[in-house]
Amino acid sequence: MNICVVGLGLIGGSFALGLKASDASIRIIGVDNMPKNAEKALALGIADETADLNSGVKNAKVTVLAIPVDKIEQVIPAILDILPPDAILTDLGSTKELICKAADQHVRRSRFVAAHPISGTEWSGPEAAFKELMPGKQMILCDVEKSDTDALSVIEDIFRYKIGMKITYMNSVEHDRHIAYVSHLSHISSFALSTTVLDKEKDEESIFKMAGSGFSSTVRLAKSSPQTWAPIFLHNLPNVSQALGAYIEHLKRFKSLLDARDEEGCKQLMELANEIKRPLHEIDRKH
Amino acid sequence: MNICVVGLGLIGGSFALGLKASDASIRIIGVDNMPKNAEKALALGIADETADLNSGVKNAKVTVLAIPVDKIEQVIPAILDILPPDAILTDLGSTKELICKAADQHVRRSRFVAAHPISGTEWSGPEAAFKELMPGKQMILCDVEKSDTDALSVIEDIFRYKIGMKITYMNSVEHDRHIAYVSHLSHISSFALSTTVLDKEKDEESIFKMAGSGFSSTVRLAKSSPQTWAPIFLHNLPNVSQALGAYIEHLKRFKSLLDARDEEGCKQLMELANEIKRPLHEIDRKH
Repeated sequence: MNICVVGLGLIGGSFALGLKASDASIRIIGVDNMPKNAEKALALGIADETADLNSGVKNAKVTVLAIPVDKIEQVIPAILDILPPDAILTDLGSTKELICKAADQHVRRSRFVAAHPISGTEWSGPEAAFKELMPGKQMILCDVEKSDTDALSVIEDIFRYKIGMKITYMNSVEHDRHIAYVSHLSHISSFALSTTVLDKEKDEESIFKMAGSGFSSTVRLAKSSPQTWAPIFLHNLPNVSQALGAYIEHLKRFKSLLDARDEEGCKQLMELANEIKRPLHEIDRKH
Repeated sequence: MNICVVGLGLIGGSFALGLKASDASIRIIGVDNMPKNAEKALALGIADETADLNSGVKNAKVTVLAIPVDKIEQVIPAILDILPPDAILTDLGSTKELICKAADQHVRRSRFVAAHPISGTEWSGPEAAFKELMPGKQMILCDVEKSDTDALSVIEDIFRYKIGMKITYMNSVEHDRHIAYVSHLSHISSFALSTTVLDKEKDEESIFKMAGSGFSSTVRLAKSSPQTWAPIFLHNLPNVSQALGAYIEHLKRFKSLLDARDEEGCKQLMELANEIKRPLHEIDRKH
């Protein structure tokens, strides 16, 4: 089976490598608008051949979009226009509402299956891709009632049986509302932690001697790609803005308790925060 | 050599285990005001015997305080009162200014060496202790010009050669100013991220299916002990409050750029944030 992967970075590359590792009959046609990335993807065994978007789509059973979310939204109608009759289009973007809306308006909507793998690292580019990224992780499929049964079935087979992911079904609007809290907000908290510390300590490199694994863990996502993440935040703006506003309020409340030297109040907030142990235990078991 | 470890939790326990692993002639006298912790520490091989504070201090060459920072501050004068003539007192607290001040007022100040190991996990109690926690990590010694040469030399020997840590020397006031940014703030950002998400998602356990390793990493420190961390934040209040205020400002700035749909502005902030890669690389090499 020919699979056209558009975008050969961390996500597209890891998808391709994971798929090829489980099924040697898969042939990956790689598409990337940066020739250097396409070359690297060939060299790294991510793609078996490279092509331009048009011929990649036309020669594949499944086309997978692994480019920034605003680009996914833009390109969906044009790809549905040229998609072969029995072929399927899917995406791996971190937002789903606007992407689904872009497909909804197309007469061939039912050939599209909206997908979001809960997997990633703070690195980017083809060199960052590795075949173990997706196996065992969660895959969210959205608005599947709008996809043809045969299209959904091929996509489920790829993600569940070939790559070995756990599939959850969800409404695209609900997806975006929740993902703002459990993923997008974490990235902003890290980016801002980094700029706060760098702003303070810019002339004092030696201070990072004082930073341990706790700081490293909390600020890790600040290494993430602006090219990937700025479009995600803007794509999911009302939800991200609401989550960020709530986070700022929680921080201000913590600061008020501290400034009032209210030790008991601080401890109570921290005990509430400790309750993240239970869901985290589940998350960490999977990662 | 007898070492009295006061507080047999994650930090005191890991110190004892690391020390015993490198020098079989070390005998640990464990002191803990919770009998259950003392029993566990014996069972886990952290302590060779347990004692009350008085007899523990009197029978040891070195007494190590690994209790909450406010308790360290309170107990230092009383311990210096009863410390044998050639014995040494040290501590492993995460703040240094008030702790050093408590010692400064004592006639036997020079028998005290102020220490802060840059090592920890989000877990607590004797069961959380492990001998690998401190080896290879950074140890900050503060205001060492106020310690006797022989006392400093014994403490340096223990941390550098026996446990295998890298020692950095620093003024206690400077220590607290910087540690607020590179450690204490990370903890607050995590605690508040946890309460924000739990507040939003309290009735929707299933949402945590959507959380991946990024969320897990960013919120990990929210599992930390309120009994340990509330005193640290309050001990270092002016610095922590300033750092937290700066963080809130950085988040508000990010939110304004998002709300204005200023994609370029967002990307620029994120590119600045990306510069944490260089110091983080150094930190991660050590952990």
